[in-house]
Amino acid sequence: MKRTKIKALLARTAPLEKVLIKGWVRTRRDTKEFSFMEVSDGSCLASIQVIVDAGSPGSEHLPALSTGAAVSVTGEMVPSPGKGQAFEIRSHTLELVGTAGETYPLQKKRHSDEFLRTIAHLRPRTNKYGAIMRIRSRTSHLIHRFFEEEGFFLIHTPVITGSDCEGAGEMFRVTTVSGTTPASEDFFGQETNLTVSGQLSAEMMALALGDVYTFGPTFRAENSHTSRHAAEFWMLEPEMAFCDLTGNMDLAEALIKYVVAGVLDTCSDDIALFANFVDKSLMKTLTSLRDDTYLRLPYREAVEILQKTKKKFEYPVSFGTDLQSEHERYLAEEHFKKPVFLYDYPKGIKPFYMRVNDDGETVAAMDLLVPRIGELVGGSQREEREDVLHQRMTEMNLPDKEYWWYMDSRRFGSVPHSGFGLGFERLLMLLTGITNIRDVIAFPRTPGSIDF
Amino acid sequence: MKRTKIKALLARTAPLEKVLIKGWVRTRRDTKEFSFMEVSDGSCLASIQVIVDAGSPGSEHLPALSTGAAVSVTGEMVPSPGKGQAFEIRSHTLELVGTAGETYPLQKKRHSDEFLRTIAHLRPRTNKYGAIMRIRSRTSHLIHRFFEEEGFFLIHTPVITGSDCEGAGEMFRVTTVSGTTPASEDFFGQETNLTVSGQLSAEMMALALGDVYTFGPTFRAENSHTSRHAAEFWMLEPEMAFCDLTGNMDLAEALIKYVVAGVLDTCSDDIALFANFVDKSLMKTLTSLRDDTYLRLPYREAVEILQKTKKKFEYPVSFGTDLQSEHERYLAEEHFKKPVFLYDYPKGIKPFYMRVNDDGETVAAMDLLVPRIGELVGGSQREEREDVLHQRMTEMNLPDKEYWWYMDSRRFGSVPHSGFGLGFERLLMLLTGITNIRDVIAFPRTPGSIDF
Repeated sequence: MKRTKIKALLARTAPLEKVLIKGWVRTRRDTKEFSFMEVSDGSCLASIQVIVDAGSPGSEHLPALSTGAAVSVTGEMVPSPGKGQAFEIRSHTLELVGTAGETYPLQKKRHSDEFLRTIAHLRPRTNKYGAIMRIRSRTSHLIHRFFEEEGFFLIHTPVITGSDCEGAGEMFRVTTVSGTTPASEDFFGQETNLTVSGQLSAEMMALALGDVYTFGPTFRAENSHTSRHAAEFWMLEPEMAFCDLTGNMDLAEALIKYVVAGVLDTCSDDIALFANFVDKSLMKTLTSLRDDTYLRLPYREAVEILQKTKKKFEYPVSFGTDLQSEHERYLAEEHFKKPVFLYDYPKGIKPFYMRVNDDGETVAAMDLLVPRIGELVGGSQREEREDVLHQRMTEMNLPDKEYWWYMDSRRFGSVPHSGFGLGFERLLMLLTGITNIRDVIAFPRTPGSIDF
Repeated sequence: MKRTKIKALLARTAPLEKVLIKGWVRTRRDTKEFSFMEVSDGSCLASIQVIVDAGSPGSEHLPALSTGAAVSVTGEMVPSPGKGQAFEIRSHTLELVGTAGETYPLQKKRHSDEFLRTIAHLRPRTNKYGAIMRIRSRTSHLIHRFFEEEGFFLIHTPVITGSDCEGAGEMFRVTTVSGTTPASEDFFGQETNLTVSGQLSAEMMALALGDVYTFGPTFRAENSHTSRHAAEFWMLEPEMAFCDLTGNMDLAEALIKYVVAGVLDTCSDDIALFANFVDKSLMKTLTSLRDDTYLRLPYREAVEILQKTKKKFEYPVSFGTDLQSEHERYLAEEHFKKPVFLYDYPKGIKPFYMRVNDDGETVAAMDLLVPRIGELVGGSQREEREDVLHQRMTEMNLPDKEYWWYMDSRRFGSVPHSGFGLGFERLLMLLTGITNIRDVIAFPRTPGSIDF
């Protein structure tokens, strides 16, 4: 007999004469005549109630069926007289697959997020972390679907890079030698690092294939112990040939609306858990992200707003300074109360590859600020003019010999092009209301933390 | 006016009064009255012919429009009197976006794969490498669709790992310190490496969520200079709770059939290029992969076949030896002439986590062998019995303290489960007939080779 997953069973509107389920016991409660078990299998948030008659085949296993034990049950799915479920299963045969015992760390009581991080290998068995992982999966799938429908090609940019200045933070070194062995004798014959961004590679592919995106792990060796930084995280980076900054913002807005709408449509049970128990304003945030038109505002005007407000900030703001998270959140959460793109940033605070505007002072950069998270997306139109790009690189002391291939793309059939980066874990925090990045990653990597 | 991609134009069956295309010149040919340009934009293999009347707006740019130059053209799409295309574009306005010039490395002539590897940043602009990258993208999307339709959750297993014995080859070390600084002062407070497999993490997730898969970059620091090995490659690893070896083989077979059918359906132009110019037997291989039932044969019987054949092998075969590529290819290519699963391998040649069969001598392992590639998939049912697993680990000198979390999964609600690994680049080589792994990766990493 073929097993049916609990998600499929719960989607039914009619009873079933014979069914086989396999899963793990959430709770068990015994009366003289029956035992009630809640059994879940990870396919969805809900569990299904199983009624085992005293003396029925396999009922001798009941005492061993504590929270976490694995079971296999055949039975009949019948309308449930109890509250909270349309159907329940009357067990015909009950099989004990694996015990959990009294030392099982996930007993019925509520556990703190801090404790659960110490058992990251078990925490997806809880309601909350199971829900996160299902939303994470669905969000990934929605991202792939969006780009496929829009005619983008998925590319895989390399994780190991020979560049040590991709321009976005400190890097991990990758090596096979030790001690004082010179880099020339290392695996690749030179120093190599873990990538901080696939953008430069993605640009090469966009200038061949048109619209592309890369979606993979990226790394920062920053010794920061905040709730928003991990050493390893996933980043989504689309890159479009023949696209300007406006097209770039259009794409980011369309993507986020598509993903939020898709998650609300298809993960409603899991989302409801977070709306009820983690962030009471979650539904408001998500419907705004889905339905509102995102504001678009030059950086210069944002600075003026921040200078005029009575709100006190830790860091002062003036034209030419990088905005801090407190400023970004103020704009999205309090001032505009919706997502806002800032664009045309001062060139002094942005990387070499962003296109210099006609004013000579700003670059065609854009950041999308959202409530609670601050910056969710950062992107730009890229500098496609060889001479301007070369001058910027010289100003910033970037070595020509490392970027010969990048410059080639401006020498041969160069076209206006644009792209952005979206931190996948930040998107998940936005979607769930979770405030610590460690809790949206299966096995998070942060300074000093590498278990599992 | 909105730009239309060439793929969408070529899919039309009716002319269009006004159209805007943007792309790169493949070839140009001038007569006194017109110029003919082939323009492509990466959206598909085919280019579209553009006719520019002498003296028409923008025609002054024609001399600069050599191979590789970027153009923007508005015009009318009309039925083509020429051979090989249904429609062509009569240019109304022609705009030069970016020149390529005489030093452009990709002039019309044919280039060797070896040369093109030295300009990996430009090679996706060629027909062949553009086709590979489109097939690579489509294959990724098909994999995600297959698993989503089958109810699997996508998980992201970590790239940086604290384990140095995942049991599948040499590892790259990841570090932020240098020289003789002790590992205890390194970023994670201990030695860390790049993952060689996400399986052990994936098992933890399967025992919570049911059916999961991880699909991401994996690494081998092996100094091998063959055409089949890269230091960085993508691996697909599904893992299923409540699943035995038969279910595991069923999944692998269904997945490959789904992907091959999908690629044949939707990448027919790109596949035709490889069938015509790279591997004349490609269509036969692919239709066999899609339509044939894959054989399933115990390892023991395969050894007997190999011992009986008159074919000479470099390496001798006997029960207990690992099969070499020559043996695997012989079985799939010559003996059975179709994909074949071998299963129940001697336990001495397989990792600790594979389930010991009742004979005590073999484990519930399976490899899928396919023509031309040899091993495409390797998997097993996992040892779910705590005592048996622990004994195997002791036999193999694996330290308990590193695996406490892995053992936990056998202590708490352990269930039979299975999974496999599929090398994504091997699948792409199978799909295209390409024989060098460096040519199915955008920017390949091999010993001494880290450009771009």
